[in-house]
Amino acid sequence: MVIAVRALLFDVMGTVVDWHGGVVAGLETWGAARGISADWAKFCIECHAAFPPLRAEVNTGKRAWANFDELLREALESQFPKLGLTELYQKDLDELVALWHAMPPWPDSVAAMQRLRRRYILSTLSNAHVAMLIDMAKAAGLPWDAIVGVDLFHRYKPAPETYLGATALLGCQPGQVMLVASHPYDLAAAAKCGLRTCYVSRPLEYGAGIAFEAPPKPGQCDLMVGDLGKLADLMEC
Amino acid sequence: MVIAVRALLFDVMGTVVDWHGGVVAGLETWGAARGISADWAKFCIECHAAFPPLRAEVNTGKRAWANFDELLREALESQFPKLGLTELYQKDLDELVALWHAMPPWPDSVAAMQRLRRRYILSTLSNAHVAMLIDMAKAAGLPWDAIVGVDLFHRYKPAPETYLGATALLGCQPGQVMLVASHPYDLAAAAKCGLRTCYVSRPLEYGAGIAFEAPPKPGQCDLMVGDLGKLADLMEC
Repeated sequence: MVIAVRALLFDVMGTVVDWHGGVVAGLETWGAARGISADWAKFCIECHAAFPPLRAEVNTGKRAWANFDELLREALESQFPKLGLTELYQKDLDELVALWHAMPPWPDSVAAMQRLRRRYILSTLSNAHVAMLIDMAKAAGLPWDAIVGVDLFHRYKPAPETYLGATALLGCQPGQVMLVASHPYDLAAAAKCGLRTCYVSRPLEYGAGIAFEAPPKPGQCDLMVGDLGKLADLMEC
Repeated sequence: MVIAVRALLFDVMGTVVDWHGGVVAGLETWGAARGISADWAKFCIECHAAFPPLRAEVNTGKRAWANFDELLREALESQFPKLGLTELYQKDLDELVALWHAMPPWPDSVAAMQRLRRRYILSTLSNAHVAMLIDMAKAAGLPWDAIVGVDLFHRYKPAPETYLGATALLGCQPGQVMLVASHPYDLAAAAKCGLRTCYVSRPLEYGAGIAFEAPPKPGQCDLMVGDLGKLADLMEC
């Protein structure tokens, strides 16, 4: 193997599952059933963009801990008026939040995880919470050894408590753990904590033709792969 | 199904895996390699009996949080002089602690869990810590949806924080969760927190011919079963 670690921590949304494809498909079905037409791909991106400032408020202590579902409800309530919908009922919000709990895996994810799991501990380290990650794992058939969500730390990535907290829960030292993620900010924060890092390119994460983040430069990550099957190859699984 | 819940929380040692059989077999091999003969079954029971007072010290705040491995090291160091061994090296302790991380499942456990998992969230709620539970799951092939150990709460069962903490992490209300365990004290504490309860009879938990705890009386648990396959039958899985 190219790199000696005991455990792999995976970012989930974008890295392992196709949140944009899954949520947009769900929104289209939801809207069609209610006669609401909208550019759901754009709407989904706008909801997604509402998260970073909300997470920063939690991490800086400006607001009390609130999990992904709670922040998503706020984002939905702020975005829906743009579609001309001024009133969302509790039932609507419940249905919409549920869309974010069941996203399809990228085509390579499950088979590669099954290979990697034979040799390594596979855990989530996602900005979702444990209950949401369980729903996502059951919906997509993801074979995790452990589910670690940021509700265990009451901080969002990229706060160091999340990387170091997950590492400690797995009984590892930082150098024994590699973060696998498609987002450079996440990998950079993990590397600062002493973790090894693997960038996975997911060019379709935000939908076809939309690229939000430049990939890391060579040397900024320990590994850079095009999909999780390539990671399993490199790790000799 | 006989009882409507969303998630099953399992005690692990004794309920799902045969800690006594696994550890005694490991101790026999370990002793034979060093020319140490002892009544390892008795030794294993005595180590086990050292735990409750140590856990109580943590729960009452008399001592800081210490996980299963740390308490086990203390128990081993207090028990080994009885065998005429006055010095245990760090390497010995590491090897002995590792025996407690790899226990065989009871013959019915894995198949029943695979059935139950189709319909319910299956999580551990063990007095072991997350890293130890991951090792046990990988060694025994236990198909958990989530790993919850008491290191997440810094309290040992039967402290209510453990049952209520696990319930909250799973996104459930107490009445939506059932604790499955072979120990009446554990089930009684879960019931006090509002969880449903299922007693599993494991007459060989402490070795053949040794019964430590009387089963609960009828009416003290929601369900009482002879093995996990019977639970899967009752839950219509």
